[in-house]
Amino acid sequence: MTLRFGLLGAGRIGKVHARAITGDADARLVAVADAMPAAAEAVAAQYGCEVRTIEAIEAAGDIDAVVICTPTDTHADLIERFARAGKAIFCEKPVDLSLRRVRDCLAVADGAGATLMVGFNRRFDPDFAAVKAAIDAGTIGAVEMVTITSRDPAAPPYDYITRSGGIFRDMTIHDFDMARWLLGEEPETVLAAASVLVDPKIGELGDYDSVNVILRTASGRQAIITNSRRASYGYDQRIEVHGSLGAVSAQNTHEARIEVATATGFARPPLLDFFMSRYTAAYAAEIAAFIAAVRDRRAPPTTGEDGLRALALADAAVLSATEGRAVRVSEVLG
Amino acid sequence: MTLRFGLLGAGRIGKVHARAITGDADARLVAVADAMPAAAEAVAAQYGCEVRTIEAIEAAGDIDAVVICTPTDTHADLIERFARAGKAIFCEKPVDLSLRRVRDCLAVADGAGATLMVGFNRRFDPDFAAVKAAIDAGTIGAVEMVTITSRDPAAPPYDYITRSGGIFRDMTIHDFDMARWLLGEEPETVLAAASVLVDPKIGELGDYDSVNVILRTASGRQAIITNSRRASYGYDQRIEVHGSLGAVSAQNTHEARIEVATATGFARPPLLDFFMSRYTAAYAAEIAAFIAAVRDRRAPPTTGEDGLRALALADAAVLSATEGRAVRVSEVLG
Amino acid sequence: MTLRFGLLGAGRIGKVHARAITGDADARLVAVADAMPAAAEAVAAQYGCEVRTIEAIEAAGDIDAVVICTPTDTHADLIERFARAGKAIFCEKPVDLSLRRVRDCLAVADGAGATLMVGFNRRFDPDFAAVKAAIDAGTIGAVEMVTITSRDPAAPPYDYITRSGGIFRDMTIHDFDMARWLLGEEPETVLAAASVLVDPKIGELGDYDSVNVILRTASGRQAIITNSRRASYGYDQRIEVHGSLGAVSAQNTHEARIEVATATGFARPPLLDFFMSRYTAAYAAEIAAFIAAVRDRRAPPTTGEDGLRALALADAAVLSATEGRAVRVSEVLG
Amino acid sequence: MTLRFGLLGAGRIGKVHARAITGDADARLVAVADAMPAAAEAVAAQYGCEVRTIEAIEAAGDIDAVVICTPTDTHADLIERFARAGKAIFCEKPVDLSLRRVRDCLAVADGAGATLMVGFNRRFDPDFAAVKAAIDAGTIGAVEMVTITSRDPAAPPYDYITRSGGIFRDMTIHDFDMARWLLGEEPETVLAAASVLVDPKIGELGDYDSVNVILRTASGRQAIITNSRRASYGYDQRIEVHGSLGAVSAQNTHEARIEVATATGFARPPLLDFFMSRYTAAYAAEIAAFIAAVRDRRAPPTTGEDGLRALALADAAVLSATEGRAVRVSEVLG
Repeated sequence: MTLRFGLLGAGRIGKVHARAITGDADARLVAVADAMPAAAEAVAAQYGCEVRTIEAIEAAGDIDAVVICTPTDTHADLIERFARAGKAIFCEKPVDLSLRRVRDCLAVADGAGATLMVGFNRRFDPDFAAVKAAIDAGTIGAVEMVTITSRDPAAPPYDYITRSGGIFRDMTIHDFDMARWLLGEEPETVLAAASVLVDPKIGELGDYDSVNVILRTASGRQAIITNSRRASYGYDQRIEVHGSLGAVSAQNTHEARIEVATATGFARPPLLDFFMSRYTAAYAAEIAAFIAAVRDRRAPPTTGEDGLRALALADAAVLSATEGRAVRVSEVLG
Repeated sequence: MTLRFGLLGAGRIGKVHARAITGDADARLVAVADAMPAAAEAVAAQYGCEVRTIEAIEAAGDIDAVVICTPTDTHADLIERFARAGKAIFCEKPVDLSLRRVRDCLAVADGAGATLMVGFNRRFDPDFAAVKAAIDAGTIGAVEMVTITSRDPAAPPYDYITRSGGIFRDMTIHDFDMARWLLGEEPETVLAAASVLVDPKIGELGDYDSVNVILRTASGRQAIITNSRRASYGYDQRIEVHGSLGAVSAQNTHEARIEVATATGFARPPLLDFFMSRYTAAYAAEIAAFIAAVRDRRAPPTTGEDGLRALALADAAVLSATEGRAVRVSEVLG
Repeated sequence: MTLRFGLLGAGRIGKVHARAITGDADARLVAVADAMPAAAEAVAAQYGCEVRTIEAIEAAGDIDAVVICTPTDTHADLIERFARAGKAIFCEKPVDLSLRRVRDCLAVADGAGATLMVGFNRRFDPDFAAVKAAIDAGTIGAVEMVTITSRDPAAPPYDYITRSGGIFRDMTIHDFDMARWLLGEEPETVLAAASVLVDPKIGELGDYDSVNVILRTASGRQAIITNSRRASYGYDQRIEVHGSLGAVSAQNTHEARIEVATATGFARPPLLDFFMSRYTAAYAAEIAAFIAAVRDRRAPPTTGEDGLRALALADAAVLSATEGRAVRVSEVLG
Repeated sequence: MTLRFGLLGAGRIGKVHARAITGDADARLVAVADAMPAAAEAVAAQYGCEVRTIEAIEAAGDIDAVVICTPTDTHADLIERFARAGKAIFCEKPVDLSLRRVRDCLAVADGAGATLMVGFNRRFDPDFAAVKAAIDAGTIGAVEMVTITSRDPAAPPYDYITRSGGIFRDMTIHDFDMARWLLGEEPETVLAAASVLVDPKIGELGDYDSVNVILRTASGRQAIITNSRRASYGYDQRIEVHGSLGAVSAQNTHEARIEVATATGFARPPLLDFFMSRYTAAYAAEIAAFIAAVRDRRAPPTTGEDGLRALALADAAVLSATEGRAVRVSEVLG
């Protein structure tokens, strides 16, 4: 069975998914829609699919699944529409920036019996997946502490920051999902500290650029997340999990695996500096996992519930940073 | 000028200092005192010095400086006595577990014009010193975040835990000192999360074994400290400092620098698993720094004030973990 | 301009090229031919091209270039035929196992004005290319010594060994090409030592499984190649170049970039153990380089002459190992 | 039992041994002799021993063992004298540059029943010893190939080169010993290639500065040694042993274990650039091994025979490089 796809949104991340779908032997990209016709045309030309309207894709008999890569504020509506239209749905995170809206949307999708996967690409990175496999194999015993370091090469444009919900919701949210996945237990309390060190203008916009978060589960497991909006040496993405029998870590990915030795010392190239080159394999594996879930009528590996819980942690972190106290997740989840 | 030493306390750490003093061309170990005569005799025999009473060392005309390695609850009294006796003093941390007592003691030492160095050995580790040198050279720009990972191979005996003041005061205190040193600014607030994951008996004794702490300075710099009372793979001691222009990190020290490749993969030996073998070079450099400070009539690199401030951070961390809130250092320092 | 390809040979390496061609936006796979119809059908089905005979591809007006992946003993004939047919030719190494036959074939191709690229995939590996770029940038000064370590996970089937020309011609030949490329000068003499350590049966077949070779150029630059038919830990592929100002090296590629620390030490996964997964990126870059050369009417980066010279070094190595003496390349090249 | 030492030669390496002896609880440095009185005085003052003549040490009743660190051309005579005087002897390599003279000297020492250890410090390096231990534990199966990379930071003074016997006898000789030790079998044939790439003046003096050597044992095991008189990045000392079940390697030692990440990449400090700092631990372990051998009346771990065989390999390498052929060790050993 080949899964037939409609792609909603032909921007940067939309192209990533177009390539991943086309490269998968079990999938076919049938149509693409975008508010900007030129963007849709470009994807259609490169990957040999049609340009259609969203309405046409919704009504199409030759499309089984959609990938939603449109602006964040359209996600929840599109999920509801395509759930009702009986399509399987892969939606880029977040579903919405409002926990209440997310909850309502998930209820609709659930009521329609739709398969809904929310994109948390990092779980599908081969190295991070190998870390998880080592944990699941019992190699490090019971998980005790998760350490996640995540730094972007540079801050995003100011207008992105004003729309994104801030660093905890646009950047740390990936780490919240990773932490939940690796801890193996739901975090119960959140402690966050936040600073503006990279660019004062970010502070003027009401956001932070340098944050640390501690998550704590009911049994006392902890995760520590450290984020920065800048890293001169590339896209810094590391995880380490410490357990009763040992620890497992995933290293960064350099531009090349070479080392130069001269009189000043030993030098290796910077890290890959863009999330798309860093996570190329992850995006392909992510779509493959979605395809497999739809085919086998299984729950996808990252669900709407995962999106909801990561957002709740972000909301709790904002509250903690603002009020200088430990915030229980139940305070924001209700 | 050769600095003539009296050693107070001939236990484990006392022997470390005896060796360091003997190996330093600018120092001579003249006498050793210990409540247990056999311990003092052993050090005297191995390093060719006399056994004397503390009183005799206090009164001795042939002794310029003392190293205090006696039990913690004697430190403050001995500092005061030897300050009044006109000796230069190197004292193992902590001065005392009570901030008030520390403050009083430092006032006495200060009033006597004594040179007082409090032992924070890690600052003298060659690798950590190289990290600090890179920061001071401006290589990574302005410091933004300090990450310290510190895990002991195994928990100490229960009776140590009952006397030590708990994990924040006996273990994290080293990391608090490192954090202050590397941040280059005083922490202003402390956020701590603490768990019992290693051994429930530690919890019954009123202590924790797994903690994370976030420190934040007035300008927003942050340090994150992660501690555990266990690490199967050895004595885990890492630091990383992230700045506006880059980052610098110090790696762990393995038992040997070899790697074995077989069908199951690539294997390196565990880490050195004892603080004395891990920090051999640091202890020697620490005493050398004390000797140089006394000789040059300079302030020692780690002072009583450093001891006081690290202890204050520990007290604040205890409060934060207990009350689930950000604690200002000024609350405990008064 | 899109380069239209015919693929000759639908075996293991043929499939690698089919995927690379299909994935290149500047190329199209038009047809595939194979003596075994089922193999050709499979490639045609997966990549959406036609099955044709070699004769039909030779005569085709809709095919600009061919990739020759047929058995070695057909390479020279096919090169001559397709050169005469006016196609651009990419041929897997070697052109032939006989230096004389190679020379004759190259003369035919040259006479026909054909573009001929001989596949030495390793030059196109991103890490090795980064090594070369560092050399070309002058980072390590004048090249002095090249060290190449190349070990296969396991020995090939016996019947391959009987047809391949032996280890120097089927395995070291890749390293001879790398050495020439990295030395920047032609080797003048060859010293080789050869043993049978892996499998006595390989010795009975007249071949070796463990060899070391030293190449020396006229100016005294040297390359040392070490090969084995087995490596328990995966496909071992390393190069290091030492120059007047420093050195540059390329590390191996592990199955995943993770490390597990337990009481027995620190463990990383084995190396990728198959040349196709190890060199996936190299094969894609290789075909892209061929396409670019044809498009721009430039000489391809690896030519028939490169194939000839690598084979000459292999012949010289066989002679050196047999006779226990330094062999001048001119002795075999004539 | 404390072993009482006389030190013959108070130069650079003599001081290394003086420190090692003094630091060993089972040894005492009683006297030092040197043709230059000031040199002897300096060692005597620093380490608290007497200055004596060689004759006085020879006749001394309070000296059990001597360490010979005088110029090479005095080694054989001194070994014979002190063997006859009934002292245990530790002699820096080489015994002599003439195989015949070495053989005669060893016969005298043997006839006198003397304990004679020839200094090959590298075997006692903790990392290299860990490599050997892994081999002896069977971890990598049967040894197949040994790879030794040894590069000095810079060429020695010209007058040293004229007296040293050349690169194979002054530098590669260490690697010949390591190769014998790691191969576990005697090399039977030697293939060497030699160039002058670092400094033409070295060539004018009749020596080389860049060499590669292949050793081959009767069963076909091979060792490859690569040497250079220069390495911009420090003192390059690596070994790797490949066997039927895997491989084991020892990495280089950097000035500090830190890494700096900036926009240009990741940088580690150069290697330790002096053999004395690189091999501090090795020199201490070497003397300890000598002391233990004398105490336990065992053969020392590196004997006169080891010195003889390493020299024979050097002689064979000279012959091979000159004549361009494989040289059997029996040709030079007679």
